[in-house]
Amino acid sequence: MKAEIIAVGTELLLGQIANTNAQFLSQKLAEIGVDVYYHTVVGDNGKRMAEVFHTARSRSDLIIITGGLGPTEDDITKETLASLLGLTLELDAETWRRIKAFFKQRGIPMSDNNRKQAEVIRGSEVFPNNNGLAAGMLTENNGRLFMLLPGPPSELKPMFVQYAIPALRSRLNDQHIVYSKTLRFFGIGEARLDDRLRDLLRNQLNPTIAPLASDGEVSLRLTAKADSEQQAIDLISEVEQKIRHRVGRWIYGFNEDTLPGIVVRHLSEARETVSTAESCTGGWIGQMITSVPGSSSVFKGAIVSYANEVKRDLLQVPADIIETYGAVSKQTAEQMAERIRKLTGTTYGISVTGVAGPDEQEGKKAGTVWIGLADGKTTETYPLQLAGGRDTIRLMAAKYALFYLWQKGKKGETIA
Amino acid sequence: MKAEIIAVGTELLLGQIANTNAQFLSQKLAEIGVDVYYHTVVGDNGKRMAEVFHTARSRSDLIIITGGLGPTEDDITKETLASLLGLTLELDAETWRRIKAFFKQRGIPMSDNNRKQAEVIRGSEVFPNNNGLAAGMLTENNGRLFMLLPGPPSELKPMFVQYAIPALRSRLNDQHIVYSKTLRFFGIGEARLDDRLRDLLRNQLNPTIAPLASDGEVSLRLTAKADSEQQAIDLISEVEQKIRHRVGRWIYGFNEDTLPGIVVRHLSEARETVSTAESCTGGWIGQMITSVPGSSSVFKGAIVSYANEVKRDLLQVPADIIETYGAVSKQTAEQMAERIRKLTGTTYGISVTGVAGPDEQEGKKAGTVWIGLADGKTTETYPLQLAGGRDTIRLMAAKYALFYLWQKGKKGETIA
Repeated sequence: MKAEIIAVGTELLLGQIANTNAQFLSQKLAEIGVDVYYHTVVGDNGKRMAEVFHTARSRSDLIIITGGLGPTEDDITKETLASLLGLTLELDAETWRRIKAFFKQRGIPMSDNNRKQAEVIRGSEVFPNNNGLAAGMLTENNGRLFMLLPGPPSELKPMFVQYAIPALRSRLNDQHIVYSKTLRFFGIGEARLDDRLRDLLRNQLNPTIAPLASDGEVSLRLTAKADSEQQAIDLISEVEQKIRHRVGRWIYGFNEDTLPGIVVRHLSEARETVSTAESCTGGWIGQMITSVPGSSSVFKGAIVSYANEVKRDLLQVPADIIETYGAVSKQTAEQMAERIRKLTGTTYGISVTGVAGPDEQEGKKAGTVWIGLADGKTTETYPLQLAGGRDTIRLMAAKYALFYLWQKGKKGETIA
Repeated sequence: MKAEIIAVGTELLLGQIANTNAQFLSQKLAEIGVDVYYHTVVGDNGKRMAEVFHTARSRSDLIIITGGLGPTEDDITKETLASLLGLTLELDAETWRRIKAFFKQRGIPMSDNNRKQAEVIRGSEVFPNNNGLAAGMLTENNGRLFMLLPGPPSELKPMFVQYAIPALRSRLNDQHIVYSKTLRFFGIGEARLDDRLRDLLRNQLNPTIAPLASDGEVSLRLTAKADSEQQAIDLISEVEQKIRHRVGRWIYGFNEDTLPGIVVRHLSEARETVSTAESCTGGWIGQMITSVPGSSSVFKGAIVSYANEVKRDLLQVPADIIETYGAVSKQTAEQMAERIRKLTGTTYGISVTGVAGPDEQEGKKAGTVWIGLADGKTTETYPLQLAGGRDTIRLMAAKYALFYLWQKGKKGETIA
């Protein structure tokens, strides 16, 4: 199946945003064995859009069009495609119900043009939007497939994974199974991982291994093609063992796992709890943990002690510790972790204190970070020297805190 | 001048990288008043590439092609374009000298196909590559301009700024100044903004007005073309006044402003301080505020009271308030804001308590949020009913807290 991706939006042509949707869709299509031949971006202009759709129809089997499904008069993607295909729009009852429910929940008045968002091209398979208002749709016309998806990545991505991929798979001739597994790493950089796995990364063909680095983490995506799912799983398992053998200690999870996600799962299974005392991260660890549904059973709370007097008065870190060793020190990190644990009565107290930069502090340069981890018996501390800008340093500090907490839980598990 | 940007590279069609070059070039072209009508991505395939170039020639004055200038056999961009234009390639002496010097300096042997990189389309204006080997070039052919640029952003960006922009400017008939200003909104949705500004958004031509929504915020980019910067500023100012008149109360800033950024700036100028008591946001407000360099002068800290016993024991919210009204209530929000303000001795205490979902809590549905804002004299509370997934609700709650805090500061300003 030959595919192409068309993004509609003048904001892309003005360079206000990058076309990350095309990247995401290309990755996902590659995984199910669909070849993408073109990406196109066109503005919110009916004539140019129609020409681009027309060209796409002449050369591709699957045309995925993103953006321009909003409520404004600029949003004419649906209308333009329908007109090219000689089809009409009709109200989709389920989408209309969802839109009305959204406005009712928010208690704000609907604007007239919101009804437009409930219209779909007649005869389409409709994809519900669980993160916004505009529905997606798939229309078959003269042997071509046309798919419309909303522009915001937060709406497009889940919709594509949940509804569009199954709809496409059922239409693919090549019924080979393509199966992927992503190994998630933390604490090891891309270059070092490449160093240790060079021969595999270069020569391994089925499964293929694709490295991807983002937000201070590296992952490896293993993709196998086989006649059955079991065969694909076996192929991946074999290569995974080789990888584990060399760099297994940095693997924290699989597929959609996240560091806060595995921390919450781990603590929850062990019926343990945690609280945090945060300085340079400003609440980021708490923010990450509480992003996980169900975190309320393991996370009690945090004290963000950004100012030293908050470390002293609320966290009750002895003033002489801060004076003698400084706010960014092993001793202060130790105290912060122990105090928050006692104050909240949790299994673990975890602390971060460091210099986020750009300026140095207490004669310590930006990137100097101490993490403390107290469990009531012992308190471990971890020094870090992080690189990058202010938010990179803070993000990495928060992630290291979660990583150490997870490793601690794992050790307990091995002993038990 | 009508322009389009064509990126050559199978890695883009596989989704291994995003087409950030197109974004960069679009921004830069907008700044000099060149309108971009299309982006296209095509693979390293001669036939498809030639077709794309051919289409581009039929509809655009300036065709910028990126990538495929490397030394390998896959790199055929230059050859394909030359053949389409009926031109030959010739060795560029200066580029060839640079390539030889590079290999000499590195002390590594040159491969035969490196000579290929020194070839340019006959008659081109050559752009030196100060960060790599492949030269860029600009060819005029039958009233069309064709520009070739190397694919790696680290080579393309400096080359475009240093050599390509001056080359383009000298060819622009229109020597106008292009000037932009972005107005940043919070608390008003895209549809409602569109509703109130419909006539302006449709009919306003100089400056143009481009709406953009992301992360729960909307912005309008006003772009004016004029003979002088002052004239452009005046044109923008006139339309900005109209916009302000209708929807000014939701404008919090300009250009690169962010909600936490303006809150920190405002508090810092007023020599005021803030602390936060966060429940459902889990520390996100603190995280946002501390992302701003210099926030230590205004932000003392936070108590993240995720569990009710932390609200009671650390924040000292009376147990009977929580029992009587619930943790998600006006009364608890009030107490949380007042207590954190007293505990940390700040000008303002701000609190958030709400149901992030997905499940309801205390019989209150997901999206129910109370924000409290205490200044020692009065404590204001704000009820919100937010929609979306868990992280959308949390993000919006955190941003509303910052927005209300900023509005409070502004009111003080008006009185003073």
